[in-house]
Amino acid sequence: MVIVMLPDAEPEHVDAVVARVEAAGGQAFVSRGMNRVIIGLVGDVEEFSTMNLGRMPGVGQVTRVSTEYKLVSREQHPDRSSVYVRGVPIGPDTVTLIAGPCAVETPDQTLAAARMAQEAGATLLRGGAYKPRTSPYQFQGLGEKGLKILAEVRQETGLPVVTEVVTASDVPMAASYADMLQIGTRNMQNFALLQAVGEARVPVMLKRGMSSTIKEWLMAAEYIAQRGNLEIVLCERGIRTFETATRNTLDISAVPVVQRLSHLPVIIDPSHSGGKRELVLPLSKAAIVVGADGIIVDVHPEPDTALCDGAQALVHEDLDELALAVAELTAYTRRRPGRRRYSAAS
Amino acid sequence: MVIVMLPDAEPEHVDAVVARVEAAGGQAFVSRGMNRVIIGLVGDVEEFSTMNLGRMPGVGQVTRVSTEYKLVSREQHPDRSSVYVRGVPIGPDTVTLIAGPCAVETPDQTLAAARMAQEAGATLLRGGAYKPRTSPYQFQGLGEKGLKILAEVRQETGLPVVTEVVTASDVPMAASYADMLQIGTRNMQNFALLQAVGEARVPVMLKRGMSSTIKEWLMAAEYIAQRGNLEIVLCERGIRTFETATRNTLDISAVPVVQRLSHLPVIIDPSHSGGKRELVLPLSKAAIVVGADGIIVDVHPEPDTALCDGAQALVHEDLDELALAVAELTAYTRRRPGRRRYSAAS
Amino acid sequence: MVIVMLPDAEPEHVDAVVARVEAAGGQAFVSRGMNRVIIGLVGDVEEFSTMNLGRMPGVGQVTRVSTEYKLVSREQHPDRSSVYVRGVPIGPDTVTLIAGPCAVETPDQTLAAARMAQEAGATLLRGGAYKPRTSPYQFQGLGEKGLKILAEVRQETGLPVVTEVVTASDVPMAASYADMLQIGTRNMQNFALLQAVGEARVPVMLKRGMSSTIKEWLMAAEYIAQRGNLEIVLCERGIRTFETATRNTLDISAVPVVQRLSHLPVIIDPSHSGGKRELVLPLSKAAIVVGADGIIVDVHPEPDTALCDGAQALVHEDLDELALAVAELTAYTRRRPGRRRYSAAS
Amino acid sequence: MVIVMLPDAEPEHVDAVVARVEAAGGQAFVSRGMNRVIIGLVGDVEEFSTMNLGRMPGVGQVTRVSTEYKLVSREQHPDRSSVYVRGVPIGPDTVTLIAGPCAVETPDQTLAAARMAQEAGATLLRGGAYKPRTSPYQFQGLGEKGLKILAEVRQETGLPVVTEVVTASDVPMAASYADMLQIGTRNMQNFALLQAVGEARVPVMLKRGMSSTIKEWLMAAEYIAQRGNLEIVLCERGIRTFETATRNTLDISAVPVVQRLSHLPVIIDPSHSGGKRELVLPLSKAAIVVGADGIIVDVHPEPDTALCDGAQALVHEDLDELALAVAELTAYTRRRPGRRRYSAAS
Repeated sequence: MVIVMLPDAEPEHVDAVVARVEAAGGQAFVSRGMNRVIIGLVGDVEEFSTMNLGRMPGVGQVTRVSTEYKLVSREQHPDRSSVYVRGVPIGPDTVTLIAGPCAVETPDQTLAAARMAQEAGATLLRGGAYKPRTSPYQFQGLGEKGLKILAEVRQETGLPVVTEVVTASDVPMAASYADMLQIGTRNMQNFALLQAVGEARVPVMLKRGMSSTIKEWLMAAEYIAQRGNLEIVLCERGIRTFETATRNTLDISAVPVVQRLSHLPVIIDPSHSGGKRELVLPLSKAAIVVGADGIIVDVHPEPDTALCDGAQALVHEDLDELALAVAELTAYTRRRPGRRRYSAAS
Repeated sequence: MVIVMLPDAEPEHVDAVVARVEAAGGQAFVSRGMNRVIIGLVGDVEEFSTMNLGRMPGVGQVTRVSTEYKLVSREQHPDRSSVYVRGVPIGPDTVTLIAGPCAVETPDQTLAAARMAQEAGATLLRGGAYKPRTSPYQFQGLGEKGLKILAEVRQETGLPVVTEVVTASDVPMAASYADMLQIGTRNMQNFALLQAVGEARVPVMLKRGMSSTIKEWLMAAEYIAQRGNLEIVLCERGIRTFETATRNTLDISAVPVVQRLSHLPVIIDPSHSGGKRELVLPLSKAAIVVGADGIIVDVHPEPDTALCDGAQALVHEDLDELALAVAELTAYTRRRPGRRRYSAAS
Repeated sequence: MVIVMLPDAEPEHVDAVVARVEAAGGQAFVSRGMNRVIIGLVGDVEEFSTMNLGRMPGVGQVTRVSTEYKLVSREQHPDRSSVYVRGVPIGPDTVTLIAGPCAVETPDQTLAAARMAQEAGATLLRGGAYKPRTSPYQFQGLGEKGLKILAEVRQETGLPVVTEVVTASDVPMAASYADMLQIGTRNMQNFALLQAVGEARVPVMLKRGMSSTIKEWLMAAEYIAQRGNLEIVLCERGIRTFETATRNTLDISAVPVVQRLSHLPVIIDPSHSGGKRELVLPLSKAAIVVGADGIIVDVHPEPDTALCDGAQALVHEDLDELALAVAELTAYTRRRPGRRRYSAAS
Repeated sequence: MVIVMLPDAEPEHVDAVVARVEAAGGQAFVSRGMNRVIIGLVGDVEEFSTMNLGRMPGVGQVTRVSTEYKLVSREQHPDRSSVYVRGVPIGPDTVTLIAGPCAVETPDQTLAAARMAQEAGATLLRGGAYKPRTSPYQFQGLGEKGLKILAEVRQETGLPVVTEVVTASDVPMAASYADMLQIGTRNMQNFALLQAVGEARVPVMLKRGMSSTIKEWLMAAEYIAQRGNLEIVLCERGIRTFETATRNTLDISAVPVVQRLSHLPVIIDPSHSGGKRELVLPLSKAAIVVGADGIIVDVHPEPDTALCDGAQALVHEDLDELALAVAELTAYTRRRPGRRRYSAAS
């Protein structure tokens, strides 16, 4: 059961609801979003139904949710949501292109990649300062130094920044530099990290675990939401299967499936799915027409010397074709490009 | 190593090549296609290279192929092929829609479904007379009676017929009714069946095994080709993974991957991939823009009473939207609809 | 619902039951086993329950079975079954070792391998005359010539023969040479083949499909049983997963799981599971103590020149250790070796 | 390349090696184990080979390692290692039984479960104070309060304690209560956590990621080793596959495969693999004879009220049979039970 408080609900209204639920032997999880407080109830639903919670002061709406994920479910919130990253929308009305280097290596490389991203039509810059790598002997990212480079490149280009966090204790620092925090596939069930970004004041991109079911993915989003951050974008990036011809198997069906179950936006990462440059363009096209709310792609000015995943990064020659495909197919879907609107800017 | 004979090569030219290869300790597999003979060589390639096979009478071209699949590889045949089913093309210049009922149940149901197929823009009719079912207690198809119904509906509608075969001994009979024979996912490595359709005089649609790698799929096609039938269309229909939210996981990346490795056309079955009606339209769109040479979908006039897979069959209300999407996205891909051209009709 | 007829039931008793079921709108599948007739009913179970089928002449027992597989379910037949291959038992009281070459290549190689099998304690000889291979350019087996070699080696050694069939039309011929027919992993859902061995008069070994669920495997066994052959042994041989360190992933848990669901014996193939010689011994040990009713292993006198799967074949040096492990662990499980007893010999 | 320093090497000897490697453009990772320092070198191996590193003061041995994992590879350390948990060995000479409740709930429940563990022959107590759960609405563990309960129960029973950590920042605190820290399957690639336990002064049990390859698992162990903690025990607990009859698919072959690649001990968790009480005993038997260095099982005094995974916990009635099987099969493997020896006690 989920209670959505009115926008002008007072803290004592929230406390009163919590107290009544606990008095009835239930648990109440308070989620303080940017413009609404939501309370998830766990316990005896029949009992709750007899308690007239809907008439308590400050309560807007009481919804019975049958799924295990509550705050992120579409049952609770039938309209699909938009998330704004420094005013750049990701949601049902737009197709948003996010691009940038897999890893931040140098200021020059990052700026060059950001310029490439803009050339392709991207309105958000991706770039990793913390890289979770299979081997401890591989490049692990520049850390805070990388975050500073990203902030400088944002200054230069105007592109808001999306970057990965890998440890709960780094979240506040990373949030002070970046505009959106990414949870990578290996950390989708790092619950301490999910809770940390749930308490951050910036939107979150939650990549699907490479062998997580859609339900587990939504439960991971619920961990974030439950801590008060409802600004979550889901990202399908390929799952692990027996097939080795591609790095991962892009589960393109996940987009329409998730959109029926959850109100959260969902985007596709064609670069990590296929793991090969030549697959990025066809998979990007498929992503847009299947209904994804955006795509996130790797670009690199000199992929042969990239410290991370060079084989899947787009190069200069690919950008025009990508830009054209995104523009044409966005039009086909009757959406608009995911650009900041002056009225919506934060 | 692959030898393509000239169109006017005589049988004795072929015999001479075979004899020389065998004299050198190799094996020669003769593949008599509709308008060319191809000979696949297995053995010591270095030795073959010294034998001047290219100068023997009737020999057109000698190609060294590094992959294990030879006749179906793109190395051997750089241009992508078109396959014609009673004049209806499936190949790189067209997007062909194949539609019909999962199973042939009655003449009325089949005709109604064929009319639905035409309404959606389909130019080929699918329909199953032999149904491989997990349980022996499920409907197994009407057998030859079903094939007769299909032939009658073809007469009525003009739609060439695609139908599944499940046993080698049924192939000649099925080929006498149908215009294209389908090998289903469970039979992708039923090698006796592959060889039987390899000897048939009609095109073959080879569905991917639900847990077969792309390489195994191409090797299965090679079995067919090696028996002389090069008129093969590959069909991706979803693979088995850990995810249970969909019936199978559509491996959409398989289309561009296969098109780089093989010259054969490749289509997508969005109905069996997702297993749910509401996924068919988004997956069909994705299929077309990712570059598939066609799609094959289930339609049924009354899916609630369908004897097979009703949950995934499109209904009347879905057809306009499908037809529109196929038309618009076919135009986007700069291809034309997969219709019979009078000049190409057989 | 399943009806087990009395041993002395007359054909007209069976016909009467079928007629009554069909009159009530149901379907009756008659299964003529070696010493009992079983009738599987499909339709309205509530209706059947009111029909007093248990009192009809010749009817022994009427069981309501809740699973989709009926004849092979343990609900229907609570005692686990033994299958006898020319008198050699495979079942709950024994641990039976089956060994031999992956493929029959020559009389000498086959006889040498049979001697190795005996040395290791095997009481059944395996050997393939028809080899389903991923590539059409690989050795496909000697066919009937191979079956003759196997029959000669049986003559020489006294070991009953287990061999694979791959096509329905070959079944009667193969059954005339061999003592047990094997259905390989790629053919587990080749339903025509299942039905053909279901009509054969010899026991069947049904290997699990490499990506089949346990339920699908039992449904495949039901196809065989439904045609009247209840002498079925299941064989777990590894499933396809993302792990590439082994050829397949042995699903050892399948043994206790299957034994709770079905009365059929179940054995393990450690050679094809791991795909490596050094894994055969540890996996064989695990198989016996987990409760498998037998194991089937590849042996080869000269594995380096084997035409099929040499890397996984045991060699002379391995045999003593295998024999000792099988003997000791068979004793541990309080079973006896799977040897023919004179009293039980057929 | 790996350098093992002599036991009496001085810190300046280590510094000198590092300096020389870095001067040659390489990287040196210093791993300070409990009784030896190991230095992993990354860079130009040919160059290193010419540098006479073996003759530098304090250097014991220089090994060229071809695998990506170095410190944990068997190439580097041909003898299989034993790890001691407060004197209790886990390694090639013993079979160690670890048992206890999935989650610590109350002092009474924990003590009762510890008594059950002892009754079954366990010499280490497992118990979770931090539980990573798919849903944020499930019991998440008692945290530090749970660790205190475990420490009290150790006092009472003498059983050293194994417990899971889920966040890097909790590691020092958890290490102050527990004798071995466990990394759970969802955190196998939580690299910050791996590095944190790599710096702890207690042994680590590293569970395999549910969809991690064996190579990725060894690379995760390398992350721990590289930070100086070589006291690592690997634990196979089932992988995710398409099969749903069991909670996970126990990859029993992983044990012999890992033991050839790495010198680290490896144990099996039959409780989480199968997810069902009735599978624990057969899988435990299989684990021991396949060569596992131990097993870890869930026990619970009242599984019906367990807050976590009650369905897989052994109950009182199961203990005798487990104890007997472990004893008999440990004897079969010519190993001894994993008990503390007075001479080896820490």
